[in-house]
Amino acid sequence: MGWNRVAVVGAGLIRFGELFDQSYESMAHGAFVAAISSVDKGFAPDAVEAAFVATQRGTLWGQEGIGGNTVPSAIGISGVACTRIENACPSGSDAFRVGAMAVASGVHDVVLVIGVEKMRDKSTAEGLLSRAASGHPIYNRGETAPVLFAPFATRHMHEFGTTREMLAAVAVKNHHNGTLDPYAHFRNEVTVDQVLASPPVCRPLHLLDCCPQTDGAAAAILVSAERADQFTNTPVWVAGFGVATDHPYLHEKSTYVALPVTTAAAQRAYAMAGLSPTDIDVAEVHDCFTITEILDIEDLGFVDKGKGGVASLDGETALGGRIPVNPSGGLLAKGHPIGATGIAQITECYWQLRGEADGRQVEIRHGNALQHNVGGRGSGVSVVNILTTNGP
Amino acid sequence: MGWNRVAVVGAGLIRFGELFDQSYESMAHGAFVAAISSVDKGFAPDAVEAAFVATQRGTLWGQEGIGGNTVPSAIGISGVACTRIENACPSGSDAFRVGAMAVASGVHDVVLVIGVEKMRDKSTAEGLLSRAASGHPIYNRGETAPVLFAPFATRHMHEFGTTREMLAAVAVKNHHNGTLDPYAHFRNEVTVDQVLASPPVCRPLHLLDCCPQTDGAAAAILVSAERADQFTNTPVWVAGFGVATDHPYLHEKSTYVALPVTTAAAQRAYAMAGLSPTDIDVAEVHDCFTITEILDIEDLGFVDKGKGGVASLDGETALGGRIPVNPSGGLLAKGHPIGATGIAQITECYWQLRGEADGRQVEIRHGNALQHNVGGRGSGVSVVNILTTNGP
Repeated sequence: MGWNRVAVVGAGLIRFGELFDQSYESMAHGAFVAAISSVDKGFAPDAVEAAFVATQRGTLWGQEGIGGNTVPSAIGISGVACTRIENACPSGSDAFRVGAMAVASGVHDVVLVIGVEKMRDKSTAEGLLSRAASGHPIYNRGETAPVLFAPFATRHMHEFGTTREMLAAVAVKNHHNGTLDPYAHFRNEVTVDQVLASPPVCRPLHLLDCCPQTDGAAAAILVSAERADQFTNTPVWVAGFGVATDHPYLHEKSTYVALPVTTAAAQRAYAMAGLSPTDIDVAEVHDCFTITEILDIEDLGFVDKGKGGVASLDGETALGGRIPVNPSGGLLAKGHPIGATGIAQITECYWQLRGEADGRQVEIRHGNALQHNVGGRGSGVSVVNILTTNGP
Repeated sequence: MGWNRVAVVGAGLIRFGELFDQSYESMAHGAFVAAISSVDKGFAPDAVEAAFVATQRGTLWGQEGIGGNTVPSAIGISGVACTRIENACPSGSDAFRVGAMAVASGVHDVVLVIGVEKMRDKSTAEGLLSRAASGHPIYNRGETAPVLFAPFATRHMHEFGTTREMLAAVAVKNHHNGTLDPYAHFRNEVTVDQVLASPPVCRPLHLLDCCPQTDGAAAAILVSAERADQFTNTPVWVAGFGVATDHPYLHEKSTYVALPVTTAAAQRAYAMAGLSPTDIDVAEVHDCFTITEILDIEDLGFVDKGKGGVASLDGETALGGRIPVNPSGGLLAKGHPIGATGIAQITECYWQLRGEADGRQVEIRHGNALQHNVGGRGSGVSVVNILTTNGP
């Protein structure tokens, strides 16, 4: 069962936050050191044969746009092949998939995937997310990220009776999990009342329904099945992955109560892994907004369509629930440094599967974890990676 | 001999130039149609399983930055996995390499690689290359591309007696080749005197020593060895590739008469292909400036170090010479739409190896062609791909 040709033997991140005191390069270096330091049997930096750097919007601010060029020198491995991967919000998860294919191709045995994003050095008006929607005759007319997701919340409420309290339950859960994650941007509890009373951003989404803008970096080490023993006795395997795209414009969408692009990506990943949603012990999913996590858990098959709000309110996705979702605090509390997000989620899955998640450890029964991002213009791309302890 | 696990079965491009009348999306569509139309036994668009889009600086101007998200819908294959690859000037060549690894991994049998860059819709001051060097405390102080390469010309002249006439010989040759390439941005002859008399940009580089800024798109279809027969009886094989990085700052360079990053990338590609420079029939190399082609042909092993200028003056790299270089006109005449450049070079190699290069066809003796880009901050990254007609 499963693909299982590539092993994760190390993963790590720096604490996410407003990292005004760190450069893009020093953030990358911190994540690289965290990842290689986590390798059970040790890891010399020069073992890296090739690297893939996820950075989403670096070009707006100068050199970070060519991270494939600048990161190797910055982290002490100048000379190695290095490529920047950009795929909107799933940039990090997609770099992980591309790195896994580079190993599986037989060309490389040891690959670094590293995600870095510096989002706070510029104001919001100058910044990444405001520019994400600019430059197009439709999208430069105010269609920022909250505007792209709010209609889904409105329609989900209309069709399924989802309430603002159900949305808030996602924020409350993820902020609670964030208090247990030393790497999270925000480590404070929030209450349902606080979420409901927070300022509206784009109704029905209020401030605490939205993830923050965050600086951060994360890294993982991928090796071929043949080489895994050299680095650890307890690798985590890449069971499968899937990527899908959809038309990027809101007016082209076939539905406003689902992101079919996530279902398509998940179906590919499940098929590759030979697994189904009920085989997943824990999931890190893309909660850029509270409504997004509700859509995700439905579209990934963890709950029936329309039941995501109720399931969140009932605690099914809490740490002790039926299918714990976003134990790391998710994008809502841990933060969303775009290129780093997916690889940080991978890191959380790696820790959870190895029983290393300390105060937020969930019960691992089947040995499988799922990681997910969705994003881009009109949620036009989704990436799902599935990790497993059940080796080849 | 050689890797030969992946075949190219189609390739094509749109005519490069100032394409104010075309959008990013329509340029991508044109290249896709050109590539699939070139497949000998026909190609249905829905055969594409995954795509890799090379665009270097799209984020500066809006949606093009998330080409992985927007290109599939624009070219009629919405749904497929699609990822943007960015690696400075070698973005296109690196997308080709990543696409080849995706096929070799066994995950995908049919992969599209497509490069698209829109560089002329903004003025030079606002534009891509001026911004490429911004945002950094050192590099935002005027170190544009000509400034990064001129010191290499100065030092090469000093150490090896290379002259401005030798530099000009590269421009004269590539502009001549461009007159024979219907896809070239510039299709006019230039003389040595015209190059010498053109305005200085950054001495010793004058205007006609520099490639233009160009809009363009190119695409290629990669398939697994097992599936190649379905598409053509005369595939071209991916014999090998190599990527290398170097420290990105000029003051960190070990030499100013070579780009060791190119030699490192080439050594990896030659080793993977089981080939040496004398096995190469034709090469498309990175002539962003005339001096760059002289460095390239030395660093790739076609001529001895220091002899690149003399070899260019003597016609060794002309269409009928010992090792024809840039039969397409190169970046100097065909143009350099960054993300598209490498895949357009691949297309030229594909045509040359299949004997389809019309008036600029070179003699193919060994059946091998080499494609090369170098770029990024301080020429910090180089990519070499080697194609062959000698299948597995």
